[in-house]
Amino acid sequence: MPRKIVIIGAHAAGCDAAAAARKTDRTAEITMLTTQRVAGYSPCGIPFVLGGHIKSFDDLVVFPRSYFEMMKIDLRLETTATSINPEAKTVEIQDKTGKTETLQYDTLIIATGAKPFVPPIKGREKQGVYTLRTIDDGMKIDQAIKSSSSAVVVGAGLIGLEIGVSFVERGLKTTVVELLPQVLPAMLDKDMADIVQKGLEEKGLRIITGHGVDEILGGEKVSGVSVAGEQIPTDFVVVATGVRGNTELAQKAGIALGETRLIKVNMRMETNIKDIYACGDCVESISLITKRPTVSQLGTTAVRQAKVAGTNAAGGYAIFPGVIGAAVTKLFDMEIGAVGLTEFFAKRNGIETVSVTFTGKTRAQYYPGALPLRIKLVAEKETERLIGAQIIGGEGVAQRINALSFAILKEMTIRELAKAETCYAPPVNETWDPMVLAAQTLLRRLK
Amino acid sequence: MPRKIVIIGAHAAGCDAAAAARKTDRTAEITMLTTQRVAGYSPCGIPFVLGGHIKSFDDLVVFPRSYFEMMKIDLRLETTATSINPEAKTVEIQDKTGKTETLQYDTLIIATGAKPFVPPIKGREKQGVYTLRTIDDGMKIDQAIKSSSSAVVVGAGLIGLEIGVSFVERGLKTTVVELLPQVLPAMLDKDMADIVQKGLEEKGLRIITGHGVDEILGGEKVSGVSVAGEQIPTDFVVVATGVRGNTELAQKAGIALGETRLIKVNMRMETNIKDIYACGDCVESISLITKRPTVSQLGTTAVRQAKVAGTNAAGGYAIFPGVIGAAVTKLFDMEIGAVGLTEFFAKRNGIETVSVTFTGKTRAQYYPGALPLRIKLVAEKETERLIGAQIIGGEGVAQRINALSFAILKEMTIRELAKAETCYAPPVNETWDPMVLAAQTLLRRLK
Repeated sequence: MPRKIVIIGAHAAGCDAAAAARKTDRTAEITMLTTQRVAGYSPCGIPFVLGGHIKSFDDLVVFPRSYFEMMKIDLRLETTATSINPEAKTVEIQDKTGKTETLQYDTLIIATGAKPFVPPIKGREKQGVYTLRTIDDGMKIDQAIKSSSSAVVVGAGLIGLEIGVSFVERGLKTTVVELLPQVLPAMLDKDMADIVQKGLEEKGLRIITGHGVDEILGGEKVSGVSVAGEQIPTDFVVVATGVRGNTELAQKAGIALGETRLIKVNMRMETNIKDIYACGDCVESISLITKRPTVSQLGTTAVRQAKVAGTNAAGGYAIFPGVIGAAVTKLFDMEIGAVGLTEFFAKRNGIETVSVTFTGKTRAQYYPGALPLRIKLVAEKETERLIGAQIIGGEGVAQRINALSFAILKEMTIRELAKAETCYAPPVNETWDPMVLAAQTLLRRLK
Repeated sequence: MPRKIVIIGAHAAGCDAAAAARKTDRTAEITMLTTQRVAGYSPCGIPFVLGGHIKSFDDLVVFPRSYFEMMKIDLRLETTATSINPEAKTVEIQDKTGKTETLQYDTLIIATGAKPFVPPIKGREKQGVYTLRTIDDGMKIDQAIKSSSSAVVVGAGLIGLEIGVSFVERGLKTTVVELLPQVLPAMLDKDMADIVQKGLEEKGLRIITGHGVDEILGGEKVSGVSVAGEQIPTDFVVVATGVRGNTELAQKAGIALGETRLIKVNMRMETNIKDIYACGDCVESISLITKRPTVSQLGTTAVRQAKVAGTNAAGGYAIFPGVIGAAVTKLFDMEIGAVGLTEFFAKRNGIETVSVTFTGKTRAQYYPGALPLRIKLVAEKETERLIGAQIIGGEGVAQRINALSFAILKEMTIRELAKAETCYAPPVNETWDPMVLAAQTLLRRLK
């Protein structure tokens, strides 16, 4: 009898889990469900479609229908898993016509993702209030842009700013409102965030920090928002105040959540119930730095967890040791990246830190097109180990974040980084890379 | 009595040694000599001036005269050190007028660099045969370009190709001739080198590999070269067949050379003679991978060694543990980088290797401007450790080389790299970075 694998979710986590399962077991019967109309696309690309950089939402589909056919994966679109019965090893599903079916599984992978969290702002039920998670959400917002001249984005996290920038690129008068005193609060310390904010403001994006939206104004349809006593007229509103993991289905089946209120898994991505695995935005991760549970709702985390879950669910063996937290984005011409802990989060985790900020160039100073690169390094004082980095620059940010991710993974000390070897050619970097120079400066503070 | 430090050489190594010495000892009397007319410039930039990317040779001066004045460094231009007397702790010098002087030192730093090596090709004494090392060499070649329509470069190493590309960019019909069967033999394995060669040929650079120049033809002045029976007409020739360390002065003073025929130093950059340090292209390095002596005549090695030599010569304490060998260049729009050992050199060092090549993209596949990225990883079979990498791509090569340099430094295994965390955003990279995907592919071969 071939092994029956059911995967709930068909996006980053679900698709990579299916691919790994198929590689591990060529004969397994793999069934994959999604509530959505389209499977296997990259949601991270949606803001860049809105901004006009990518031509069409269709371009975001990374796994086309033909892929699932070739891999012999039974993909059920617009289908909801309504309950899991761990004793019988079944999943109840319902398609868009209302038809129900009971799927038998040997192993089950929960990759239900997350949904936007909308805080209880007065007026949030009005027409013209959107959230952005799916291609369908993106298409609605794209329509709204076409008939609008102004917009408000609530939340200045990664997605909020990417959306805000796309609106400016489409010619809308745009305001981003953030309750916390800085942009990108999960990613950057305030000193670095202020540089990003200034850069965005110079390009025409209005940003209000330290104030929430008190009310969404208008009749049936949005006409403005009220922020700190100011009424800001707007044609529509996008709420981008973070996401919450889709854990209800798992909870109903008796699957345990962790202290972050996401599904708790071990290193093999197994839940507390035998033969049920979980991966992606709905699961809790372990920080490789603090060794404690953490929330890492990144696409890169999802696919890496999925590879492990899919391999194990198909009878293989793989482990996912945890996350460092490496993220990057591009806002206008500015690349912004971070890895590990910010100084703020390190302190909140009780870690005594020493940090430094340093400004270098992306090419030899005499080479045309050399752009400034601002880098912040955070070290644990006791061990002198690098535990976090933040970089803002015109180019070369993502791969420097990767270099420092490798450094953190391998427990590199600031002393080692200060002596580390980097390559050099005038058109592509400086003789001493700013990462190394920053470490040299930080080393003097550690002495 | 202030400490007297004499530094022979005033380029990458000399200047960084002086800077480190000054930081370590604010009151030292620092004297620095160079045989050249200009000090403190970046020779790595010369091909990019020739190619028209950098406006002027003057732009290459990283340490202007005012810097040496501010740092209270007594800089003697066009001055030659003719002998060292280690017993008396003196250096005999002679300026361009023939005037001699005896400098007393407490510590001496030899940073004499290297000079081009010209093989005994028949006709190499003719007018119109150049080498490229100094700004003055660059200016002569720049003049030659202006009055020429064709050129031949002998040698397809990093400098040879950079020069060849600059000639094409300036409109010359250019041929590069390489005796070995591939371009960039010190940096790439043949499979990767062939990709570079093809890319350069597509841009109009003619490349002949596997044949040397048998004769430089012409009367008093060059008129062509003879290669494998073919006569190639040319207006001038640049010989770029590598460099030899300037070790004669040190040898005369009884300073020992290592097995690579470069000056032997310990981790503090001390020679076998007390109070005499050496750094830069004239010294032998230790490979952090093979733990054996190696030649690492790179600008980045020079400045890192110089920082250590300068610190120690001024009474501080610093060590230079060795080199990994990270290099990069940009030829037309192609970035080419390498770190660690090639498969060829690893085998020559008796290391059993497993390797892989992998082609990915520099951005999300659906993001406009995504360019191919070809990556080769070399692992030591026994330990499964990464020991080398080669990358060719349209962007993001240098920082990936740095990331893999950090990985090699920290003895990362292919298994660890296959699970390593990288950041992701559609405009700047893929969800799975090609480095990680290459490691995943290689891992399957190690099993």
